[in-house]
Amino acid sequence: MQIFSSSINTLIESFTKLPGIGPKTAQRLALHLLQKEPKTADHLAGAIHKALTNVTRCRQCQLLCESELCEICGDPKRTNEQLCVIESPLDIVTLEQSHAYNGKYFVLNGKISPLDGIGPEDLNLEKLKTNAQMAHEIILAISGTAEGEATVHFISEMLAEMNLKITRIAFGVPFGGELEYLDQKTLFHAFSARSQV
Amino acid sequence: MQIFSSSINTLIESFTKLPGIGPKTAQRLALHLLQKEPKTADHLAGAIHKALTNVTRCRQCQLLCESELCEICGDPKRTNEQLCVIESPLDIVTLEQSHAYNGKYFVLNGKISPLDGIGPEDLNLEKLKTNAQMAHEIILAISGTAEGEATVHFISEMLAEMNLKITRIAFGVPFGGELEYLDQKTLFHAFSARSQV
Repeated sequence: MQIFSSSINTLIESFTKLPGIGPKTAQRLALHLLQKEPKTADHLAGAIHKALTNVTRCRQCQLLCESELCEICGDPKRTNEQLCVIESPLDIVTLEQSHAYNGKYFVLNGKISPLDGIGPEDLNLEKLKTNAQMAHEIILAISGTAEGEATVHFISEMLAEMNLKITRIAFGVPFGGELEYLDQKTLFHAFSARSQV
Repeated sequence: MQIFSSSINTLIESFTKLPGIGPKTAQRLALHLLQKEPKTADHLAGAIHKALTNVTRCRQCQLLCESELCEICGDPKRTNEQLCVIESPLDIVTLEQSHAYNGKYFVLNGKISPLDGIGPEDLNLEKLKTNAQMAHEIILAISGTAEGEATVHFISEMLAEMNLKITRIAFGVPFGGELEYLDQKTLFHAFSARSQV
């Protein structure tokens, strides 16, 4: 027997399509919005529509934005000497918070993953090659997964002939992390790449 | 510095208004929708709008629904003899899944909580009194929190003169639960209410 009516069930189902939201949470979200926060629900629907209409990709770095260039690519204070290649826009948020970097970015919006049917041709790497011509150093801030390794390999091969400095961010023990919880591969790398105190 | 444009930030902010969704999850949801699932985003916005337009409350039990009576109140196979009083529509979902009950419901949509400014007058208890006249037994399926206790006390006082059987669902050790993780109050109650094997 259906407990809720079709509009409510459709809303619950729409919420389950979001990443990390299961059926129970979807129910809770839908009922909370309809019962207690119809205004919030209306704002959310409006915000989705507005973002879908306005948002496009930065012509230069492929970050989601609303104008031709994103805030970072349009900022004259940021150097063109370095180009940092990342997998997803969320990585920019974390990198910017760390204040470790003041150059430009290139967002791959994915990584090479044959199992998911994502090949080099899906990452717009020609664009990366064009952008790389302006830089002296390409920093690959790509995760240490199998797909990340494949992506790093492909990009460094592709850029090899361009006479650029190609670097990759360091792997090792995270600050505050305890050795006993660390995986073997990271620990092995942290040992091999040890530095003098 | 703003990394994302205003539409994206508005969307992220709208997601943080949902219960249990913090800023990091909101970012992940918003970017996932805009980058990979614009169709899902559009469906979600549409589902919210449709639900906000169509959904009203059942005239009899106050459950969210789309017609005058909800599915349960409109079902002639369900007995009017018993009336189960619950706090939120989600409780109906769990109760229906347990197949423990075949009567009607009354959804309080809250519980008496002076700290949150919710008094008995906010729970539409006059309507409950009217509905109770049709029943022989009122089952209070209300949680064992301080607010739940206050609500149970108030309702049972209110219905006392009506010569009805008023019951409350049993408290005790949950099936599959381990004693060592149980709180003292539940364990104390489980001991007092023990039954012969």
